[in-house]
Amino acid sequence: MSNSPVYDKVALIGVGLIGSSMAHAMRRDGVASRIAGYSHRTETLEKARAIGFADSLHDDVTDCVKDADLVVLATPVGAYAVLAEQIAPHLKPGATVTDVGSVKSAVIRDVGPHVPEGVHFIPAHPIAGTEQSGPEAGFAELFDGRWCILTPLPGTDAAALERLKTFWHRLGSDVEVMDARHHDLVLAITSHLPHLIAYNIVGTADDLQAVTKSEVIKYSAGGFRDFTRIAASDPTMWRDVFLNNREAVLEVLGRFSEDLSALQRAIRWGDGEALFNLFTRTRAIRRSIVDAGQDTAAPNFGRSKKPG
Amino acid sequence: MSNSPVYDKVALIGVGLIGSSMAHAMRRDGVASRIAGYSHRTETLEKARAIGFADSLHDDVTDCVKDADLVVLATPVGAYAVLAEQIAPHLKPGATVTDVGSVKSAVIRDVGPHVPEGVHFIPAHPIAGTEQSGPEAGFAELFDGRWCILTPLPGTDAAALERLKTFWHRLGSDVEVMDARHHDLVLAITSHLPHLIAYNIVGTADDLQAVTKSEVIKYSAGGFRDFTRIAASDPTMWRDVFLNNREAVLEVLGRFSEDLSALQRAIRWGDGEALFNLFTRTRAIRRSIVDAGQDTAAPNFGRSKKPG
Repeated sequence: MSNSPVYDKVALIGVGLIGSSMAHAMRRDGVASRIAGYSHRTETLEKARAIGFADSLHDDVTDCVKDADLVVLATPVGAYAVLAEQIAPHLKPGATVTDVGSVKSAVIRDVGPHVPEGVHFIPAHPIAGTEQSGPEAGFAELFDGRWCILTPLPGTDAAALERLKTFWHRLGSDVEVMDARHHDLVLAITSHLPHLIAYNIVGTADDLQAVTKSEVIKYSAGGFRDFTRIAASDPTMWRDVFLNNREAVLEVLGRFSEDLSALQRAIRWGDGEALFNLFTRTRAIRRSIVDAGQDTAAPNFGRSKKPG
Repeated sequence: MSNSPVYDKVALIGVGLIGSSMAHAMRRDGVASRIAGYSHRTETLEKARAIGFADSLHDDVTDCVKDADLVVLATPVGAYAVLAEQIAPHLKPGATVTDVGSVKSAVIRDVGPHVPEGVHFIPAHPIAGTEQSGPEAGFAELFDGRWCILTPLPGTDAAALERLKTFWHRLGSDVEVMDARHHDLVLAITSHLPHLIAYNIVGTADDLQAVTKSEVIKYSAGGFRDFTRIAASDPTMWRDVFLNNREAVLEVLGRFSEDLSALQRAIRWGDGEALFNLFTRTRAIRRSIVDAGQDTAAPNFGRSKKPG
């Protein structure tokens, strides 16, 4: 890996978990000469300043993007349209505008129309994160060995696309290019539905009258606690994901509910063979995920201290 | 903690993840003078022999329980009735029969009638496990800081109950006593439903035509991988859980599905406030679980190497 910067100035519109992790990762490998960060919250700017991952911090988004070679939208996606409109007149010709949102068709719909002639617009989505949020949650290794999906529009400048790919490689990611619509369906099943289900089951448990909250917490090691991690993710970000990937989420949710009804029937009628067959099939997927380096093989995610 | 044995001979009927972990934990603190293990599978007995956590290993269950002061049923619960019938005539007067099954009313129904006069029967359930199975998956620390629930029947001998409590304390657990019916409902929400949902979503993803298996695996870090851990749990054990806790599982599943329909409607109609409110409420439960020591506070379960 070369240590020369991929972009001179990078502007991070949003310095939460993803924005701050990008800053740390850029610094780790000299990916940018200058990093500017924006937040509309004074408290967030103060935290970011104390950590020191940006060269400049701004409460005015137009100041932040001035002279930037790469502008990264890294707020909840519901804020993109207004931000894109605000920054549009201040973008440097030849610059690239990208983002890190978990939905892509809606981002193209909201941001695309504002991007001026002579500025490249290449939507992106790093498949990485933790359940924590805010500038203090970021760390340089977040993207290492994870995938970043780019969803360029037809006619995207090849050199600008190549440069953004190099940028994400230098941040530690593998890069994949796909169509925005397909991205939204893939993520609906690999990310959005899991979050929805996790939020839902935690809510159901919280509402049960016959089982106390204290019991749910004490006995959560039986499986429940695995769901609570992603159900602790940032509420604003996830509200915006579901509002902006409605179609694909409703489609996979429909399939999930159909399958769940079949399982429910198998339990009601004591169909042990149907249960056993499903439970056997699902083991193979776990193994593949571990083999692909997308999760740890340690039992219990390595929570327990098994010797050897 | 005293190092004197709680029971002289302990017979483990089943030496998979739980049975073998009990053996390791008993040896760690001198909880038993002698440990006997049974399996009907030659391969399992050979593995157990190679690891060496038992003093004797048996393919005849009546040999295994001979002279035992504590007999622990640790196979999938579907096998309990037959095993209980086989061992009944060979149990030592004054011995205690217990188990480690994830359901308790069905165990009382299946085992209770076989337990002879003069032998104590105290059902138990350690809330601990990993997604791995077999004698090589066991380790001494599995029960440390986890809860073990005892569901004694009315009229249970107080001294026998006290002794079994001491046994589990010495294995590293906290001990709780509750009614079998309530246990089954608590576990339906904290363990059985999470497993059912996890198995189901992994199956749904596997069946989708529009998204390839390779895509599901590559992008699983977006949330999906968290579900695959518990969906890799032992199929026979879990089939038996669902067949034997039908009523409670169907009850909590009904609540879950109702709540999911409401979420589906919120997404369809763009009700951001309803989504945000649920997503905020669920964060608190995660915090409580971490505070109670039932999960790690490390982001991503500590999968990522965040410095500091």
